[in-house]
Amino acid sequence: MTRIIKVGDRIKGANDKIAEENRAFFSSAGVKTLNVMSSPGAGKTSLIEATVRGLADKLKIGVIEGDIATAMDAERVKEAGAAQVVQINTEGACHLDAQMIKMALSHFPLEGLDLVIIENVGNLVCPTNFDLGEEHRVMLASVTEGEDKPKKYPGMYLAAEALILNKIDILPYVNVDAERFSAEALEVNPKLKIFQTSATRGDGMDGWLKWLLEGVVGLKD
Amino acid sequence: MTRIIKVGDRIKGANDKIAEENRAFFSSAGVKTLNVMSSPGAGKTSLIEATVRGLADKLKIGVIEGDIATAMDAERVKEAGAAQVVQINTEGACHLDAQMIKMALSHFPLEGLDLVIIENVGNLVCPTNFDLGEEHRVMLASVTEGEDKPKKYPGMYLAAEALILNKIDILPYVNVDAERFSAEALEVNPKLKIFQTSATRGDGMDGWLKWLLEGVVGLKD
Repeated sequence: MTRIIKVGDRIKGANDKIAEENRAFFSSAGVKTLNVMSSPGAGKTSLIEATVRGLADKLKIGVIEGDIATAMDAERVKEAGAAQVVQINTEGACHLDAQMIKMALSHFPLEGLDLVIIENVGNLVCPTNFDLGEEHRVMLASVTEGEDKPKKYPGMYLAAEALILNKIDILPYVNVDAERFSAEALEVNPKLKIFQTSATRGDGMDGWLKWLLEGVVGLKD
Repeated sequence: MTRIIKVGDRIKGANDKIAEENRAFFSSAGVKTLNVMSSPGAGKTSLIEATVRGLADKLKIGVIEGDIATAMDAERVKEAGAAQVVQINTEGACHLDAQMIKMALSHFPLEGLDLVIIENVGNLVCPTNFDLGEEHRVMLASVTEGEDKPKKYPGMYLAAEALILNKIDILPYVNVDAERFSAEALEVNPKLKIFQTSATRGDGMDGWLKWLLEGVVGLKD
């Protein structure tokens, strides 16, 4: 009899087990968690910077930065005022996984934090398959990506609770309609909460920060 | 003794073997091949449309379109005048592989074609690890992705012969410098040939088409 080893399933099972441990660890520390995913360059780091600044008087936020290489993003969010920051370099891997988060947590005291934001590697496909132990998942899309993307990359749009449709300041200069983009996203996932933002200019940030405070952290103003 | 099965290596070996078969098949038909890679929404399909239109009187071009889902891109390049078009749907996979190309070739007569352009799945990481049997590899980046991306995603920048830095028509409206973006790319890969283009408006297309004709297809004007 030939023994068939399904390595994909085994890896997935091992990841999910560690993700559950991470989730329990965050939960026992009373810390909420958010996994932020998108294509490269959609504006994840800019959104996280604006989020840390916008909630500076309400929340203590820690950030786990995931990149294939460099520590540029960790430096940016530290500068923005994040209470704790750690950079993971995946050295080629196209997504974060639960083991990487577990390792990061050994350098990352959770005491005093309200929220940990995890910035995933820029990739519109692979990160959706790896539970990190987070409670909430959101995605960004840059309007410049085009309205056809929700149907061409449905996995990510289905995995996210909320879509931050970012860079709306560029809309006058590109042939893209934010309402049509949003409608296409809702056709793929009718439950998506959508925020149209310009993280660099500030448009739409109030709605996003309110949802984060109330829907993720559970605070009421 | 424990037997260790390295599935990654086995998959890679199987892919490379089929890639060599594909390469021999293209070569025996006298057809040149180009693998086009980028993040989602950098403008691969727009560039291919403009390329097919721009070389209509010089080359017969076939296009193999790779997407996770939908046949939208195949319809666009057919409309642009490609001599042969086939759409591959990867159904979740984050990159094309050699076996997918082999299967596509059974629906894709090479007779009379000068060039086959393969549009990979939008992903700045995974496609670089899978040889499809192509002769040439190029990548696109949208200027909106930001100048930090070459160092954050070095694998793709190292795998490509040429970078098409696209959407330069948006430069006046974003905080990005095309010269700095190009310099960052050259720091990662000093051999990169760089074209700054707007595939939709036409800027820079002459240089790109000349390189494609001379460098890839081997024609002289």
